[in-house]
Amino acid sequence: MTWSAKQYSTFEAERTRPVRDLVAAIATAPVRSAIDLGCGPGNSTEVLAARFPEAAVSGMDSSDDMVAAARERLPSLHFDRADIASWNPAERYDVILANASLQWVPDHAALYPRLAGRLNPGGTLAVQTPDNLGEPAHVLMRAVAADGPWAGVIGDTRHPMRHPAEFYYALLQPHCSHVDVWRTTYFHPLAGGAEAVVEWFKGTALRPYLQPLSKEQQAGFLARYTEAVAEAYPALPDGTVLLPFPRLFIIATR
Amino acid sequence: MTWSAKQYSTFEAERTRPVRDLVAAIATAPVRSAIDLGCGPGNSTEVLAARFPEAAVSGMDSSDDMVAAARERLPSLHFDRADIASWNPAERYDVILANASLQWVPDHAALYPRLAGRLNPGGTLAVQTPDNLGEPAHVLMRAVAADGPWAGVIGDTRHPMRHPAEFYYALLQPHCSHVDVWRTTYFHPLAGGAEAVVEWFKGTALRPYLQPLSKEQQAGFLARYTEAVAEAYPALPDGTVLLPFPRLFIIATR
Repeated sequence: MTWSAKQYSTFEAERTRPVRDLVAAIATAPVRSAIDLGCGPGNSTEVLAARFPEAAVSGMDSSDDMVAAARERLPSLHFDRADIASWNPAERYDVILANASLQWVPDHAALYPRLAGRLNPGGTLAVQTPDNLGEPAHVLMRAVAADGPWAGVIGDTRHPMRHPAEFYYALLQPHCSHVDVWRTTYFHPLAGGAEAVVEWFKGTALRPYLQPLSKEQQAGFLARYTEAVAEAYPALPDGTVLLPFPRLFIIATR
Repeated sequence: MTWSAKQYSTFEAERTRPVRDLVAAIATAPVRSAIDLGCGPGNSTEVLAARFPEAAVSGMDSSDDMVAAARERLPSLHFDRADIASWNPAERYDVILANASLQWVPDHAALYPRLAGRLNPGGTLAVQTPDNLGEPAHVLMRAVAADGPWAGVIGDTRHPMRHPAEFYYALLQPHCSHVDVWRTTYFHPLAGGAEAVVEWFKGTALRPYLQPLSKEQQAGFLARYTEAVAEAYPALPDGTVLLPFPRLFIIATR
């Protein structure tokens, strides 16, 4: 799947807020090395580097477009193109950050303890993942995909499975001295109504649904999806749509 | 209803965290005056005063016990005994904080805009309320109250009604230049199993249920409630119970 740094950055202020909340929760013990797994266009890496100005901070992403955007944004930091699923560095880190990236990686039961194992003692794994597969925007995505001329292509498309907060707490607790889990739903006021909601998801969750379709199918799918979204997310009197966006946060200290 | 500062403070670290998150979200514009409505034993006022050290900070609470505890904790600040529902000061404030207090006050549709009206232009109303009436702990509270020898006394006891995030956004938006709403569920690991969960709520939500009962009825009610809670909140292998606690946050800038 190719990624567009430009499309992703359309809602940059809203998309950067969770990582600010996440990074603010990391304890201020001396941090000499930190890495941002799935750094996207570098907005999360920027927050990480600002919080730990004395640390050697690097980032990696599976998308060439994202790595290029991150390098341009933060020329003094080191960025690599690499996959999280196969990431197996020789070094150990004081902070491993994964902001809105691990939801694309399967098998969390194996992945999360493996990442915690790449920490120095006392180091912190800080993870934020969207927790919105049950939200109307996702339910409708699956429903529209399964019911239209495109159903043969994307009818069975699914995002990798995520788990509830309790799962991650129980998973990481045996490997860590302290685990803190919370789930925040942000309510983003979007001025553009249902079109803005669709625009939001075009940069992320809709990508596996749109990518396999022809231009024509994409247009048909998006028209049907926009219609369904407009019904599920009614606008306030001033035309604003409040988009609830739940996200799961984990701070696990080794 | 009388309040116990000691019982409330049993889980002080957990109860102070939301107000830290709330106060951290207030913009750092110059703040000369700030008040804490429903200050309890002063833990929230302490966070507020630490954030705005140059401001004149005061607090108020409807409970003598809480006001006494707050004065002892923060002798240099001013605390009054007063009710939020009838609060009508001559002065205006740069910050009005209400941390885990407005859920006890009825008629939010009138209350919240009235509080916003007590702000100086550019001032901030910062509110955090538990949003947990639908959680098993509350559902079971009402179920056990309605089904036992105490049903005639507390069977119809209800906490004042709260509303979803969208309600508060739409309510405050016309009175404010900016409204930000989010909902966070904290997952508190409690070492003491179901008893610890009950202990948690004894300091707050259980009070209107326990207060009208005799000592004997209280014991019977608590035994039945603890049993129900143990079933609804199963312990992890190490005996810890993860208590999910959803809270609604509002930052409204006039």
